[in-house]
Amino acid sequence: MKAWRLNDWKSDPVLVDVERPRPATGEVLVRVGGSGACHSDLHLMHEFGPGILPWGPPFTLGHEVAGWVEELGPGVGDGVDLEPGRPVAVYGPWGCGRCERCRAGAETYCEDLASAPVPGGGGGLGLDGGMAEFMLVPAARHVVPLPDGLEPAAAAPLTDAALTPYHSIRRSWPKLTPGSTALVIGIGGLGHMALQILAATTAARVVAVDTRPEALELARTAGADLALLGDGDTADAIRRFTSGRGADAVFDCVGSDATLALGAAVGRTLGDLTIIGLAGGTLPVGFFGVPYELSVQTTYWGTRPELVEVLDLAARGLIHTEITTFPLEGALDAYRELEQGTITGRAVVVPDTEGRRS
Amino acid sequence: MKAWRLNDWKSDPVLVDVERPRPATGEVLVRVGGSGACHSDLHLMHEFGPGILPWGPPFTLGHEVAGWVEELGPGVGDGVDLEPGRPVAVYGPWGCGRCERCRAGAETYCEDLASAPVPGGGGGLGLDGGMAEFMLVPAARHVVPLPDGLEPAAAAPLTDAALTPYHSIRRSWPKLTPGSTALVIGIGGLGHMALQILAATTAARVVAVDTRPEALELARTAGADLALLGDGDTADAIRRFTSGRGADAVFDCVGSDATLALGAAVGRTLGDLTIIGLAGGTLPVGFFGVPYELSVQTTYWGTRPELVEVLDLAARGLIHTEITTFPLEGALDAYRELEQGTITGRAVVVPDTEGRRS
Amino acid sequence: MKAWRLNDWKSDPVLVDVERPRPATGEVLVRVGGSGACHSDLHLMHEFGPGILPWGPPFTLGHEVAGWVEELGPGVGDGVDLEPGRPVAVYGPWGCGRCERCRAGAETYCEDLASAPVPGGGGGLGLDGGMAEFMLVPAARHVVPLPDGLEPAAAAPLTDAALTPYHSIRRSWPKLTPGSTALVIGIGGLGHMALQILAATTAARVVAVDTRPEALELARTAGADLALLGDGDTADAIRRFTSGRGADAVFDCVGSDATLALGAAVGRTLGDLTIIGLAGGTLPVGFFGVPYELSVQTTYWGTRPELVEVLDLAARGLIHTEITTFPLEGALDAYRELEQGTITGRAVVVPDTEGRRS
Amino acid sequence: MKAWRLNDWKSDPVLVDVERPRPATGEVLVRVGGSGACHSDLHLMHEFGPGILPWGPPFTLGHEVAGWVEELGPGVGDGVDLEPGRPVAVYGPWGCGRCERCRAGAETYCEDLASAPVPGGGGGLGLDGGMAEFMLVPAARHVVPLPDGLEPAAAAPLTDAALTPYHSIRRSWPKLTPGSTALVIGIGGLGHMALQILAATTAARVVAVDTRPEALELARTAGADLALLGDGDTADAIRRFTSGRGADAVFDCVGSDATLALGAAVGRTLGDLTIIGLAGGTLPVGFFGVPYELSVQTTYWGTRPELVEVLDLAARGLIHTEITTFPLEGALDAYRELEQGTITGRAVVVPDTEGRRS
Repeated sequence: MKAWRLNDWKSDPVLVDVERPRPATGEVLVRVGGSGACHSDLHLMHEFGPGILPWGPPFTLGHEVAGWVEELGPGVGDGVDLEPGRPVAVYGPWGCGRCERCRAGAETYCEDLASAPVPGGGGGLGLDGGMAEFMLVPAARHVVPLPDGLEPAAAAPLTDAALTPYHSIRRSWPKLTPGSTALVIGIGGLGHMALQILAATTAARVVAVDTRPEALELARTAGADLALLGDGDTADAIRRFTSGRGADAVFDCVGSDATLALGAAVGRTLGDLTIIGLAGGTLPVGFFGVPYELSVQTTYWGTRPELVEVLDLAARGLIHTEITTFPLEGALDAYRELEQGTITGRAVVVPDTEGRRS
Repeated sequence: MKAWRLNDWKSDPVLVDVERPRPATGEVLVRVGGSGACHSDLHLMHEFGPGILPWGPPFTLGHEVAGWVEELGPGVGDGVDLEPGRPVAVYGPWGCGRCERCRAGAETYCEDLASAPVPGGGGGLGLDGGMAEFMLVPAARHVVPLPDGLEPAAAAPLTDAALTPYHSIRRSWPKLTPGSTALVIGIGGLGHMALQILAATTAARVVAVDTRPEALELARTAGADLALLGDGDTADAIRRFTSGRGADAVFDCVGSDATLALGAAVGRTLGDLTIIGLAGGTLPVGFFGVPYELSVQTTYWGTRPELVEVLDLAARGLIHTEITTFPLEGALDAYRELEQGTITGRAVVVPDTEGRRS
Repeated sequence: MKAWRLNDWKSDPVLVDVERPRPATGEVLVRVGGSGACHSDLHLMHEFGPGILPWGPPFTLGHEVAGWVEELGPGVGDGVDLEPGRPVAVYGPWGCGRCERCRAGAETYCEDLASAPVPGGGGGLGLDGGMAEFMLVPAARHVVPLPDGLEPAAAAPLTDAALTPYHSIRRSWPKLTPGSTALVIGIGGLGHMALQILAATTAARVVAVDTRPEALELARTAGADLALLGDGDTADAIRRFTSGRGADAVFDCVGSDATLALGAAVGRTLGDLTIIGLAGGTLPVGFFGVPYELSVQTTYWGTRPELVEVLDLAARGLIHTEITTFPLEGALDAYRELEQGTITGRAVVVPDTEGRRS
Repeated sequence: MKAWRLNDWKSDPVLVDVERPRPATGEVLVRVGGSGACHSDLHLMHEFGPGILPWGPPFTLGHEVAGWVEELGPGVGDGVDLEPGRPVAVYGPWGCGRCERCRAGAETYCEDLASAPVPGGGGGLGLDGGMAEFMLVPAARHVVPLPDGLEPAAAAPLTDAALTPYHSIRRSWPKLTPGSTALVIGIGGLGHMALQILAATTAARVVAVDTRPEALELARTAGADLALLGDGDTADAIRRFTSGRGADAVFDCVGSDATLALGAAVGRTLGDLTIIGLAGGTLPVGFFGVPYELSVQTTYWGTRPELVEVLDLAARGLIHTEITTFPLEGALDAYRELEQGTITGRAVVVPDTEGRRS
């Protein structure tokens, strides 16, 4: 089968023929129906080198994946909901499966990394991912049936670009009561989903901030009550909008020093500030400059039960991801366009495997 | 009556005769039974100057106060539980009383400071406090009846030195399940109470860290399962004690850069790190150096309902504050000894008003 | 001023001239802008007799009230948000104001009834209510400013018909995650609001059940995903809709033996069943017939902070109450129509006081 | 090996020689170190008949089991913590392992019973249990390593007699704050553990009620603040003890009509009443006779993560089960004494397998 392999750090992936994997005991082979091209793949191709991550090339890219069950390994057959042909999404973070975190479905925070398939990674992140015709998933628990009405190509980006903000919004639900205000900074792939998730699951007022005027238009469409251009007046405008109280929850999808400082400036006492974006900034937390009991934390991806919930929201039409599809052969074009910022919505690679099954 | 007035920044308080206040509508006059001498009073005497705080001298010191109801202002009489002679504690942070935070009892985080008696302060903090024979409390809601078995002198330090760690531990209760680990850094007045509160209200394992060997002895007495001298091996020792998982909740009663770095090094993913101590440090929070979803926040004092709960714990003997008493005339001695570190437990000034009532 | 007085049990109220009240210390006089005619008023007129309730006639009817601040009693003046002319809603349940429940805003569950203005009642329930030109409110804390965009006549029914289901839905929020199902039984005044509140504050699927076909139409308009005629197949239909799991939360706005039995039949293990309607039924709870850990409870009205949240939802257009207005003189007509079931939405009595102020 | 088989309804089990089971893929063979004799076993022997439960004889009794890993089936070997010889407890309720409830560790409430080993049962409940030398556990996830300091014989009863009350107390933790009151009705095997668990994990006041004077002595030893003989004055005594407020959480370990009525009479508004005991009573819940928002529910056993927590409490000495041991051959004696009420603590059958391994 065809697969886009990253053979070395600081190189482009190459499309090669590899042997189609066979699922061993407990494993599931998924025929890929959609594989999202993600900014973090660009980091993998261009920025990292040996020794930075606990895993490395060669492996097949693609960590946002949905498709159809192709073949079940021995011992998986009892589950009535995973028969071959079943549309499924792949839960991406793969942990040991047995520690307290993994048992609760939060394999992102596995505490026995030595027993995980690869420490801190997964398919497309150290192990073979979904930029291929088929993808081998090492355990049936990572394979989540799609609810009716959701196609694999549309579901693929939900497994990451929607799951990540959903996870962070979910922890802030108790503070996002009617009358409260949520602030989303950075209205790109994740921020755009954050706005929709907030509208679907809370009655909070939502403020969106971005430095790009076109992003503000998108923010309004996605449900923002107020969309602000990030500049010197932003903090004051948010204070005014909230009658001086500030935002009960801040979701920073950028994560630079500047956006974190904005979040701290307008966060409310007893509120939440979650760092989602990977711009690499830090916020100095202490008694000065940060409101009392503003809970500041990073976050990473989401849990398996949360993925089930995200898929349900999408199947019911409460959230929606715009996608642009590419054939498998065009994956490199997808990455190029992603790099240039010319893609509408999320780029999803869709292998032409329809006629090939059996 | 006699009162210790702070007349200027950077000066010692002086014991002077002032007129005994009369309670106006809604106010309560409390005969002081105990007024704690607190480190923050030393900061007020020695370190601050004009323009740093939103309030300033002259005022009577003393913000940890308990005593007896002496006289009720007009309109307070309906409450059967505040008749004159009733032993009471004074809830120290005084807000507007009408904003959302104040209504929930968290006057520490009043959101209408312009309507508070003094913005961000209270009795002994900009307004006249308890280092006097009598103290005027501006609203009956700040006066909390003492449960049976608790005397004002013993209750006074509970209103701050116990309430502050209690408030921060309470927010971490959901994470302090059996099998979890709490870490308390700094086993002084607050840390010592934190250990007792953890033992009384959770079944978590408790680790104590201090740089003074004698504090470790106190830690063990107060319920620590493991007491560690803070040095280069501390983080490793905590990791070993927790089988590599780290501490589910860190209570930093010091708050220096070094202790915060220790807290971040041994905090568990999804855990809590609360900055309680005023050493002025900061923790840079971002994707590197801090565990995923470790919630980092400061905290300040506690709520009125929490004070009721703290008093209940003490009345039942589940927590205990060691005190050393001084007569009103000896308050300056108390502060001197506090400064020199020669006091056992909390210094409490106890005016000799027993014979003077009516 | 004119007021509809209930002078005796088992009698109609009469419109009489009474002296306009003057607010004493701490009290607020409200010029009535809307007073809802509620089914429970019909019970008061027709069914009760001496000794059943801890209070009784004579008093002015009307416990769903909004209007404008007319005059503040002494000592209330400090609050900038209660100046005369300010549109406000009246929080109806009036407790002692000092017990733990009242301090938390849940005066419905006051635990010092002897100190309440009337035990277990309020304005229009033992004390003079809002079916009059003016209404005296005994404490400023019961007067809640209306947010911009909400008129008193429309706000009046929110204080009861929306607040009651809101309170019960709010307790079930943690169980109403995406993928869950809520069931509302009885789509009248309260049930109709329940559907809107569920849609505004959760992403749960919502099933509505009623025995009247026309109510099902209303249910669909108000956001129900599935509207079922209550008959012998209802439980099966709900089981099918939920893939056999049942409803995570049941809100029974009828409260008869039959509706409670339906709720128990389709409730999910670990779910909630709240009895809201006053039809007088009971559900026998034990190990047989009720799912494991289905939490069964009654509920009564709501809290003051919740009223603030309900008003916010309405001001933002997320929930809406249909009203039919009557002049003050027509209150008896309103009750007659209410009794006959010919009113569209909620009947609200609107005194013509516009020109009379000063 | 020897095993106590229940061959028919309404019969005593018989000790027979059966083939020692071999673990298939994913299974674990446990050498039994302790198997608790439980009252529900007596019901199985004496009361049930065909068609009442979804499973039936023949099977080996014993559903409270701990021991040592004897042999791992294929595919289980990766886990470092389940090597042969490892002391373990067996999590008793066995579900499908894949539905939402099972994934969260609550296999008690499995929602795909058709895929469970036996619907609503487990080892000793329809499948072969632990009244034998060895017990076959169908999945590694049911086998929980014992923490240091806990022996299998002592651990066995914790898996049921401690886990069941622990589960119900855990749901009430948010209401069992300092100043609150918990009521335990029935101080037998479960009630006695409930008292210890309350003392270890909360700072609530605890009231115990029983009709047997000797049980009250046990209650005081186990941490009750007040132990009351159940009679006509009990409700009044509890009201007095709680200053009229009632009990914030009621744990009814009897579950008769009379004890449930007592619980409803003294439950506090907004409190919890959990039916734990199997005496078969019901409580009619409606607007009269039950306090507002007293949450009434049954409960069944507990979750796997909770079992880990219970074992931790016991290993640290915070809870303790008194046991009387019997050899495997004496199991019938254990049941006889259990029936006659002459056993001190829990009867645990301990097979003499020490010398037989390998």
